[in-house]
Amino acid sequence: MKALVYHGPGKKQLDEMPKPALREATDAIVRVTRTTICGTDLHILKGDLPLVTDGRILGHEGIGVIEQVGTGVSRFHVGDRVLISCITACGKCDYCRRSMPSHCEVGGWILGYLIDGTQAEYVRIPYADTSLYALPEGADEDAMVMLSDILPTGYECGVINGTVKPGDTVALIGAGPVGLSALLTSQFYAPAKIIVIDLDDNRLEVAKQFGATDVINSTDGKAVAKVMALTGGKGVDVAIEAVGMAATFNICQEIVGAGGHIANIGVHGTSVNLHLEKLWSQNITLTTRLVDAITTPMLLKTVMAGRLQPKQLITHHFKLAEIIQAYDTFGNASKERALKVIVTNP
Amino acid sequence: MKALVYHGPGKKQLDEMPKPALREATDAIVRVTRTTICGTDLHILKGDLPLVTDGRILGHEGIGVIEQVGTGVSRFHVGDRVLISCITACGKCDYCRRSMPSHCEVGGWILGYLIDGTQAEYVRIPYADTSLYALPEGADEDAMVMLSDILPTGYECGVINGTVKPGDTVALIGAGPVGLSALLTSQFYAPAKIIVIDLDDNRLEVAKQFGATDVINSTDGKAVAKVMALTGGKGVDVAIEAVGMAATFNICQEIVGAGGHIANIGVHGTSVNLHLEKLWSQNITLTTRLVDAITTPMLLKTVMAGRLQPKQLITHHFKLAEIIQAYDTFGNASKERALKVIVTNP
Amino acid sequence: MKALVYHGPGKKQLDEMPKPALREATDAIVRVTRTTICGTDLHILKGDLPLVTDGRILGHEGIGVIEQVGTGVSRFHVGDRVLISCITACGKCDYCRRSMPSHCEVGGWILGYLIDGTQAEYVRIPYADTSLYALPEGADEDAMVMLSDILPTGYECGVINGTVKPGDTVALIGAGPVGLSALLTSQFYAPAKIIVIDLDDNRLEVAKQFGATDVINSTDGKAVAKVMALTGGKGVDVAIEAVGMAATFNICQEIVGAGGHIANIGVHGTSVNLHLEKLWSQNITLTTRLVDAITTPMLLKTVMAGRLQPKQLITHHFKLAEIIQAYDTFGNASKERALKVIVTNP
Amino acid sequence: MKALVYHGPGKKQLDEMPKPALREATDAIVRVTRTTICGTDLHILKGDLPLVTDGRILGHEGIGVIEQVGTGVSRFHVGDRVLISCITACGKCDYCRRSMPSHCEVGGWILGYLIDGTQAEYVRIPYADTSLYALPEGADEDAMVMLSDILPTGYECGVINGTVKPGDTVALIGAGPVGLSALLTSQFYAPAKIIVIDLDDNRLEVAKQFGATDVINSTDGKAVAKVMALTGGKGVDVAIEAVGMAATFNICQEIVGAGGHIANIGVHGTSVNLHLEKLWSQNITLTTRLVDAITTPMLLKTVMAGRLQPKQLITHHFKLAEIIQAYDTFGNASKERALKVIVTNP
Repeated sequence: MKALVYHGPGKKQLDEMPKPALREATDAIVRVTRTTICGTDLHILKGDLPLVTDGRILGHEGIGVIEQVGTGVSRFHVGDRVLISCITACGKCDYCRRSMPSHCEVGGWILGYLIDGTQAEYVRIPYADTSLYALPEGADEDAMVMLSDILPTGYECGVINGTVKPGDTVALIGAGPVGLSALLTSQFYAPAKIIVIDLDDNRLEVAKQFGATDVINSTDGKAVAKVMALTGGKGVDVAIEAVGMAATFNICQEIVGAGGHIANIGVHGTSVNLHLEKLWSQNITLTTRLVDAITTPMLLKTVMAGRLQPKQLITHHFKLAEIIQAYDTFGNASKERALKVIVTNP
Repeated sequence: MKALVYHGPGKKQLDEMPKPALREATDAIVRVTRTTICGTDLHILKGDLPLVTDGRILGHEGIGVIEQVGTGVSRFHVGDRVLISCITACGKCDYCRRSMPSHCEVGGWILGYLIDGTQAEYVRIPYADTSLYALPEGADEDAMVMLSDILPTGYECGVINGTVKPGDTVALIGAGPVGLSALLTSQFYAPAKIIVIDLDDNRLEVAKQFGATDVINSTDGKAVAKVMALTGGKGVDVAIEAVGMAATFNICQEIVGAGGHIANIGVHGTSVNLHLEKLWSQNITLTTRLVDAITTPMLLKTVMAGRLQPKQLITHHFKLAEIIQAYDTFGNASKERALKVIVTNP
Repeated sequence: MKALVYHGPGKKQLDEMPKPALREATDAIVRVTRTTICGTDLHILKGDLPLVTDGRILGHEGIGVIEQVGTGVSRFHVGDRVLISCITACGKCDYCRRSMPSHCEVGGWILGYLIDGTQAEYVRIPYADTSLYALPEGADEDAMVMLSDILPTGYECGVINGTVKPGDTVALIGAGPVGLSALLTSQFYAPAKIIVIDLDDNRLEVAKQFGATDVINSTDGKAVAKVMALTGGKGVDVAIEAVGMAATFNICQEIVGAGGHIANIGVHGTSVNLHLEKLWSQNITLTTRLVDAITTPMLLKTVMAGRLQPKQLITHHFKLAEIIQAYDTFGNASKERALKVIVTNP
Repeated sequence: MKALVYHGPGKKQLDEMPKPALREATDAIVRVTRTTICGTDLHILKGDLPLVTDGRILGHEGIGVIEQVGTGVSRFHVGDRVLISCITACGKCDYCRRSMPSHCEVGGWILGYLIDGTQAEYVRIPYADTSLYALPEGADEDAMVMLSDILPTGYECGVINGTVKPGDTVALIGAGPVGLSALLTSQFYAPAKIIVIDLDDNRLEVAKQFGATDVINSTDGKAVAKVMALTGGKGVDVAIEAVGMAATFNICQEIVGAGGHIANIGVHGTSVNLHLEKLWSQNITLTTRLVDAITTPMLLKTVMAGRLQPKQLITHHFKLAEIIQAYDTFGNASKERALKVIVTNP
C-alpha cells in the first residue's frame, strides 16, 4: 500500500509499504479514507521527536472503514465507518479509568509516533473498541477528521481546562488550527469577549469570522497593553496558550486577571520563567494537558446537531498520491493561507 | 405616587400612595422607570400567598434611577440607573456568604411580597449595595427588566441546577416566560437537542424561534412516548420543570435518562408522587431552588455582549397608568399571545 | 462444586453444581475464598426480584484466587488474589466510559442476579480486567470483602452523592451494614456532626463506636423534632437514606436544611410522597444511585493506609458448608446482633 | 495604649499609641485579648514590603472583645467575643461576591500592613460585619487565634486548591506553621500518604506527630528521589509548596505525577523556572492564592467539633508587654523550637 514514511530528520517519502495485519485480538485494521497533517508531524520531520524512527508511517488523524477486526473487538464490525482518535486507550489501566487515556499505560499518543500511523491506505488500530468511534449516519467525512485531534485538543486543553464560563473574557494566543479549535469550542460557553492574538493578519481575519470579538496583531509587542485596555485593567478570566513558546506564555501570565486561568495547549521545547513573585497572590490556576480525547463522543453530537462546524477549519484538499504537496502547502501555512489540509483516499 | 395595590384575593387597584422614605442607612429610594408583571403576582391576586397583606404594593422586577440613598450605601449615588433584583441580599448573613441570598436571613424574596414593591413610581430597596446592579452605559432598559427575575430564575434553577452541558439532550416542560428564559440560557452551553413541551401551540412556535430543536404539544398525553422516541429510548440528560404541577413533574421523572438531572423551577402547591421504586437505581439528581439571582452580573455581561437577547421575551408595552390593562393582558396570556409585558413610567 | 442455589421464593439450598467454565475471552474463573451475604440476597429469597430464576447461584461479593483466564484477559493471571466487584463493567460502552458502569450495557449488577454468583467454590467473572481488582500484598481478606459492595455503596451513593464536606451536619437514617459504611466513609470528610437514626438500640450503640456524634432511636416518632433541636432549627446539610422505605425517606425531607442534600441509598419498593409544595424553594438536591463501584481503587488505598477499618463491620464467620446457618444469622440480624457475616472456603 | 510599632527596616518598638477611634459607620473597635506573630511580620521588619510605613502597628491575627461599633454594624454588639480575620472583606464588591475577598476592592489584606493592626491593646476593624466572626461559647481563645490566618491559609491555598482527596498521596514542602496547618487540614480528606519535606529535623518530628506518614529531610538534596521511590516512580497527586523559594518550588514540579496538582502557598520574592518542556503533556494543575479566609466559619465548626486541634501549633506564650521577646523567640524558630507564639493582653 502507499504510505507517507519518515526517513530521519527532513526526509519523508510516499513509499510502497506492506499492508498492516492484526497483531492482537483487540486490534482493528482500518482502510483510511481521509487523513490530515498536524503541526506535530512537522515537528517530527524537523527531528524534534527523537523517539520516531526511520521507516515510521506518520499521521494520527483520520477516518476510514473497518477492514478487519481481532477476536477481542466487540463494538465494531467489518464495513463500519469510523473516526480514528489520536489517543489510543486500552480502557483498562488506572489512567484510562481515571478518564486520562493520554497517559494510558499501553497507549496514549502512539499512532504515527511509536507505531505506524494514518497517512496510508491502511492502518492498524490497537484497542479498537476504545480508540475508534462509529461515524453517525450522514456525518460529513471532512468535518469528522477534525475530531481526531485538533477539536478535542483545543476543547479539552484550552476550553475545559481554562473553565471558560458564560460572560467570561477569554484571550487566545495563537490562531493556528488548534487555537482556532479552541476559539470555536469556547463558544459552547457563551463568553462575552474572545480576544485573539497572533502575528498573522490573515489568521486574525479568520479568527474574526470564527467568532473572535477582538483581534490583536502582536507584532508590535503591545499585545499586553492592548488586552489590559480592553479589560479595563483587570485582565482576562481565561488565557489560552496555543503556540508553545516562552514569549506567548509570557503574554498569558501578564494578562491573566486575579482569579483567572492560564490553559496551556502549546508544545513547549524549553522552560519558561513563571513570575511567582507577582502571581503568588493572584489566585490563578495554570493547567497543562496532553489531549485525552474523552470528549469525542460529545463533540460528535454537537457536530451532528450543527452547533459546531469543523469544516471551516479546512482550506485545502489533496489525494493521498499528492501528500508530499499537501505537506508543502501545510508547511507554508502563512503563505498558502492554509489551515487544515484534507488528504483523501482513494 | 401611583402604585398597584393588593386589597385581598381578587382585588387590586391603581392607588395614590405615599412616596416611600428611607428607613435604614442601607436603603435606597429608586424612581421606577420600567417594571413588569410576574406569574407570581397573579398567584398573589388569587390569594395563594397568605403572607401578602391588604395594602401591599406588588412587583419585584424593575429598573429605575436612584433618587436617594442612606448613609450606609456606598456603591450607588443619586442619579445612577439601576437594575432591581427580585432578591434582597444583606450580603452579611451565612446564607448570603454561601452565595444563597434566596434564604437571606433578613432579605430573600420580600419585594412586593413582604414589603412594598416595584409596580409604583418609587420603591424603597433595602440593602441597596447588594440588591441593586448598575446598568451599563448603553443598556436597553426593556431588555434589562428581564434580568430582575425571569432570566436568573430560568438560568439558575433550570440550566445551572440541571447542569446543561455541550451535547446534552434537554427537555423543557412549560414554555411560559420563565421556561423560555431557561430555553434561552440553556443555549449558553450548546446542548445538541432542546425539546420543549407545552399545551399551547403558539408558545411552542415561539419556543422554536427561540432555539428549541423539537417541540411537543402534550395535550394528547403522549409527550413521554414522543420524548423517548426522540432519544432512542434512553431519555434525556436534563429535564427542566417550569410549570409547577404534579402532571408536568411526572413527565420529568418518566423521561429522565440514567444519570440525568431533573431541575425543578415550578412553584408547586401540592406534593408529588416520586417514583423511587424505579428511580432509586437510575443515578438521577433532582434539584429545587428559589432563585438566588447571583448570576445577574454575568447575565448583564452576556446581554451587553449580545450573547443573550432578552427583548425577545417582551410582547406588550403599557404605561403605569394602564397597569390594570397590563394585568388583563398578562392574565390572558394564551389568548393575548402575551409573554412579558413592560410597564413604563412615566 | 458446592454452591448456594435459589429455588424460588423462600427456597435456597447448598447444592452440588458444575464448576463454571470460561465462555468469553474476557472471562476469568475465580476460586472464591471469602464471600458474604447482602440484604439484597434476602430480598431475592423473598421473591422481590422476579428476574432471578430457579437454579441461580446467589452472591455478588467476594474475594478469591484466579483459577483460569480467557485469552482476552490481560491484567490478571492464574494465581492472582483478587477482589470481586459487585458491578460488572465492560469498560467500553458509553456508560462505562462515563464512569457509570452501574448501567453498563452488558454488565452492571448481574452477579448472583442474572448470572451465577459468588456464594460458591468458583465463579465466572465476565470482563475480568475491568471487574476485578488485584489485592495488594498484605491485604486482610476479611476486610477486603467489605469492598465488593457495601463500602462503595455507602460511599458513592451516600457520601459522595450527598457531597459531605468538612464542618457539615450529616444525618444518616438506617444503621445497617450499608448505613454504617456510609457512616465510616463520611468521616473521610471531617463533618462536624453525624447524627444516626435507627430503631435498634444495639445498632445505634455500634454507630456511636463507629463515629456517630449523636444517635436517635426513632421508635417514638420524634426523630424529626430531635434533629431539628440538634441543628438549631436549621436542619442538616446532608441526609442519607439507607433503609428504602417511605417513612425513612420522609424523615429525610423533613430534616434537610435549605441548600442541603438528600442522598438516597435505600432500595425502594414503592413510590414516596415528595413535598415539593415546601421543598420547591429550599434549594435542595436529591440523588439516587446504583453503586458504580468506581471508587474501589481509592477505597483499597485508604484501607491499606489504615484510614478505613472495614473489619469493624464483620460480626460472624462461617464455612461455606455452613452457609445456610450464615443466612439464618444474617436474616435475624437484630436478634443475632449481626452486621456482616463472612463465609470462608475452604 | 501599648502597641508594637514598625519604624522602618529592622526597627520595631512597643510604643504608647493613641487608642483607635471609629472612622466609618461600618467599623468596629476591638479590644485585643490574644494576638500572634506571623512570618509575614518578619518580612515586613526586613523591609521586604515597602508599602508598610514608619509608625504602622503590626499584626493581622487576633481575637478580642467588641468595644465599640459604628452605626452601620448590625451583626456585632459591644461585649461580643470575636475572631479577627486577616482578610478585610467589604462584602459588596465584585471580588467579595465572587467569594474572593483577598482581592476586595477596599479590603483584602490590609491589617498591620496598610492600616494599623492587632499587636496592640485595641484595633479598628473596617467592615466589621464581614471581617469578624463571633466566637462560639466555650471556644478556646488560644486555639481560635490560629484561625485568623494560618489555618485558612494552609487549608484554602494548600488543601482546597490542591484538591486533596481520599486515598491521595500528598507531599508538603515546608513544615513551618502554615505548612503544618496544611498538614492538619489535609487530613479532613483522608489522604493515604502525606509526605512532609523540610530541612529541620525538629519540625519533621512535629510533622510526624501531626499526622505525616513519611518525613524527608531534604538537606542532602535527595528529596525528589526519595519521593519518587515512595510513590513507585509515579509522583504525588498533590504537591503543596509552603516555603516560597525557587528550590522548594522546583521539588514540587519534579515530584508531581501525571494529572497531579501543585498548590503554591509560599510568598515568592523572585520568579521561578517552570519546566513546561516536560510538564506541557503531564496534565498538571498549578494554583496560587492569597488566602480569602472564606472557610473560617467552617473551620470554626470543625474546631468546636474536635475534628481539628489548632492548639498543637502553639509553642510559647507571652504578655503584650513582652512582645519584643515574643518576636525574638519566633524569629529564632529553629533554635527555640517555636511554632506559633501567643501574645496575651492583659
